[in-house]
Formats: sequence, structure tokens, C-alpha cells
Amino acid sequence: MTPPRRLGIDVGGTKCLGVILDPSGAVIEEQRRPTPNGPDAIIDTLVELAAAMGPWDSIGVGVPGLVTRGGVLRAAPNLVDINNFQVGALLSGRLATTVHVDNDGTCAAAAEWKTGAARGLDDFVMVTLGTGIGGGVIAGGTLIRGANGFTGEIGHMVVDPDGPPCPCGRRGCWERYASGSGLGRLAREAAVAKRLSRVVALAGGDAERVRGEDVQAAAREGDADALQVIDLFGRWVALGLVNLTNVLDPEAFILGGGLAASADLYLAPIQRWFTHLLYAPDLRPHPTLAFAQLGERAGAVGAALLAEVH
Amino acid sequence: MTPPRRLGIDVGGTKCLGVILDPSGAVIEEQRRPTPNGPDAIIDTLVELAAAMGPWDSIGVGVPGLVTRGGVLRAAPNLVDINNFQVGALLSGRLATTVHVDNDGTCAAAAEWKTGAARGLDDFVMVTLGTGIGGGVIAGGTLIRGANGFTGEIGHMVVDPDGPPCPCGRRGCWERYASGSGLGRLAREAAVAKRLSRVVALAGGDAERVRGEDVQAAAREGDADALQVIDLFGRWVALGLVNLTNVLDPEAFILGGGLAASADLYLAPIQRWFTHLLYAPDLRPHPTLAFAQLGERAGAVGAALLAEVH
Repeated sequence: MTPPRRLGIDVGGTKCLGVILDPSGAVIEEQRRPTPNGPDAIIDTLVELAAAMGPWDSIGVGVPGLVTRGGVLRAAPNLVDINNFQVGALLSGRLATTVHVDNDGTCAAAAEWKTGAARGLDDFVMVTLGTGIGGGVIAGGTLIRGANGFTGEIGHMVVDPDGPPCPCGRRGCWERYASGSGLGRLAREAAVAKRLSRVVALAGGDAERVRGEDVQAAAREGDADALQVIDLFGRWVALGLVNLTNVLDPEAFILGGGLAASADLYLAPIQRWFTHLLYAPDLRPHPTLAFAQLGERAGAVGAALLAEVH
Repeated sequence: MTPPRRLGIDVGGTKCLGVILDPSGAVIEEQRRPTPNGPDAIIDTLVELAAAMGPWDSIGVGVPGLVTRGGVLRAAPNLVDINNFQVGALLSGRLATTVHVDNDGTCAAAAEWKTGAARGLDDFVMVTLGTGIGGGVIAGGTLIRGANGFTGEIGHMVVDPDGPPCPCGRRGCWERYASGSGLGRLAREAAVAKRLSRVVALAGGDAERVRGEDVQAAAREGDADALQVIDLFGRWVALGLVNLTNVLDPEAFILGGGLAASADLYLAPIQRWFTHLLYAPDLRPHPTLAFAQLGERAGAVGAALLAEVH
């Protein structure tokens, strides 16, 4: 008997990544396609990718945005022309099988839980620090989906109702501060206030063009002003983690996304501010800050696991 | 055969309330004792109360503060001289039976879930708006306790890291804004800024003595300045509910505590601000705002239910 092959596809803003998992959860095949514009073209791409990677025994798809429990993508800010996209129903129809669909943050949480950094944990929060912030919640040994399937939209916790506008239409969302784009924004604010000469030099001399990468580079050179921005950034990351801890009391946070790669710069400030902001820090074990193990494959691996954690 | 009698005791800052539930969950007996100072006296009081209400078949105790899953009360700001109080072990020893112990907010959530406003719900958050803010989380049909038993400390979500000091030792906790004491503080700030003449008059002419009740009274008279404070208060309540929605996607919030009694004043501003602050408000059903049904008995009723929801 052939061992079961589980297909997972992660639909990203630029590419669709498909993986086949073996029974142990290891990736044994991988293919990618550019993500096209519009719902019809996305379905065609997914059908073609699924055919190219067949045969398989189960299929799951991760998508970026608000996904209902019935597999409808309500909105996806990083995809073109997506609005109430019936991805689950359309794909199930075309492939003549059940297709499990969930949010990419939820998929990443499932992947780290079953095959990555969170193996064996019953209570953790996945925090994906990329351009924005995504997430997923495991509590009491269960992947929590919520009433509609919209749990884990942690990047849109409001940390300052009068704060900077967010592409989501609100103001002061956590991801305006604690993501990659948040770091860039904090750095530009400091640069325009003329406190970041080295960082501005690394950005080519224009304070308005400063990016998170420039701050990281200057901080690695030991530049004090850049380190101050990193500290401020760590404070904002910690604030969100503290609030999640007050609500959910997780044993760990699994940090993923692009920023996790330069975690050595942020970890100490995050931990210091975490202790400073947490309710009753001396009376309890603090959640572990661990790093995601699956990198850019987390969404696809988690999508392949949806059939069993659904 | 006699039907089982379940005893629940809620240890509050001023009184201990004991109830006996019948099999339907209805309260059939009730007794109260003043809460004494110090752990030994509290244990003596609980043992005496349990004896006076016997015989019973199971016993649970709700306590205010951080309670471990093993029944240790780590800290309780509203009780005197409590620090790592082994209430579960001590009481189990004295009564020679298992005593279930949990946080009073968690107990209130269990009570509303099994016998009150949240019957039949799988995903809701209990929010107790009193002097502070307590809470409890049900997600995926399970009472969530977290790694240590500390879930639902929602009053200590930090909404402004530079905000006013909280008795917990941190700054800008949600309960500094969205609780009964938060309403009083918002009103005093407005009064000192000379915007609340009617409210100050109701408080006896002293802006520093303004309480939440004075704002409520002036708002009921239609005083525009008081209504503005109520609106600001509603904005802060909504901010916390929005953040909980982004994390947990509940189908309802069950609002309890002293402020729920004058909910008619706050409900419209809370709902308006909720829509204003929520991520993607047009793309999803909004959680219901429902009111707790068990009033001051919620903690004791929930304590009596701990044996079965543990």
C-alpha cells in the first residue's frame, strides 16, 4: 500500500506554493506558481498545480485574509480583486473532493504545532511578524477557529485608537508598530526627527526612504540611535504579546515571518519590555519565545495538515 | 435517592457567598459570611460555611486573583495578606474531599455558560465590568484555562503603555479606562478640565470627588458634557472588545459586573465604537453584546459547576 500523500497549497501575494507531505509530516515535493490576479485565474492556477502534484489523498489550501469556516475568503488585502471568494466550494467542485481552506496564519500555527517548534504544546500563539502580523491560536490542545473562522487576526488589535492609519481602514493596529513595516515607520519617524544619521546614510541620505533593513544594519554596527529604535520596536512587540498573555496565558509564542530571521536583535528588548508590561510578572512562569522552524513553507505545510486538525 | 447537591463559594473582597445548586443548576440555598483577613481565617470561614451548608456532594471555590491550575492563589489585590495561598490543598485537607478552585471571572463565565446568558454558545468571552475588569474565555466549546490557569485577565491588557498607573503595578491597563473606576477617572479628568459643571454639581461641587455614578446621573438628565464622557468610556470599552474579537472571534460577549446594570447608557456608544475600531466590520457578523443573568451570584454558581467543567 502506498503511504498517503497530503497536498497543501499556500496562496501568497506573489506566489502559490504547493507541498506534498509524507506520513511523518516531512515535505517530499514542492512546486510553485506565480499568483495571478482575480478569483477565476487563482482557481485555474490551483487546479493546475494540484494536477501537476498528483496523485494525492487530501488537499488543503491556505489563503491570506478573513476566511469563513465554510471556506469563503471574505477579503484579502494582498490579493487583487478578491471579495467573498468561494475558494473552498469552487475548488471542491473542480477537483471533485473536499478541499479544506483556512487562513494562512492558522495554517502556519497548525504546521508548527504538528511538525515544527510547537510540537507537544497545548497552549500557544503563533505570531507571524512579516510586512503585517498574522497569527493562530492553539488553546487547551485545540486549534481555535472562533464563531466565524476569524481567530488570530492579532495584527489588528488596536494599540492606539488615534494612531497611524492601517491599510485595513482602521487606525493604530498592532501591525503598524510591531511588524516589518512598523519598524520602518518607527525608524522614519525617528529619522525625520533627525535622530538617525547613520540609518539615514545607509538609506542613501533620504530620511523618508529609511526601511527596517537600514535600522537593522545600523544596529548591528552598534549605532546607539538605531538601537533605540530597536528598543522602541521591542516595546511594541512586547505590548501585543503581553495582551495575548493576559487573555490566553499561553506557554509559548512561536515567532515566525521575515523578522524572525533577525530575532537576535529584538529578543532582549522584547523580553525586557514583556516583563515590564506584564500583569504580575513575578508570580508566574513567562511564556517561552520560540522561533518558527518551517520558514516560508509553514503555510503550505499547515494547509496540508488541515484535513486532520479541522 | 436524594438528588446531588453542589456547593459553590465565591470569596469576594467583603463577603463569602455560598450557594447550593439543584440538578437543574438553580440556586436552592444561599448563605454569606464576612470575608476575614489572612489565609488561616479565610480557610476557617470556608470550612464553617461548608459545614453549615452541608451535606453536599461536590464543592468548588471561586477566588479573586491569579489562581494556578493546582488551586494556588498567587496574588489577590482585593484580599488582605494573600500571597501564594494554597487554598485548594488546605481546603481539600480540612474537608477531606477534592475542592475545585478557580478564578472568579472564570467561575462567572462557567455559570453564564451552563445556566445563564451564554447557554449553548461555543465561543464567547465573559467580561465583568466592576471596579476592575475580570473575565473568562470559552472557545471551541471549552472553558479555556491556559498554561497556568491564568486566562481571562483581560482587565490588564495594556491599552496605553504611558497611561495612568494601575494597582497591579503596570500602566494603562484596560481596566483603568473601561471599568467603574475607569469611568470615574475619565469623568474627573473632564471635570478638572472644567467641562462638567452639572456632573461636578451632582458630586457636591468638588471636581476631584466626581464618581462614575455622578456622570451616569447627569447623563440620564441629558447633560451633553456627561454624555460626552459616556461616549469616551464607550470607546474604551469597545477598544478592548475589538481586540478580543480580533484574537478570538467570539459569537458573543457576556457583560456582567456593576456597570452592566446601567447598560442602557453605554450600549449604543460601545456598539458604534466597536464598528469603528473593528477590522473588516462589513465582512462579518458582529458578536452579540448580551448581559449576564446571574448577577452577584455568578461567581458562586460557577464555583459549584467547576467539578463538571474542570
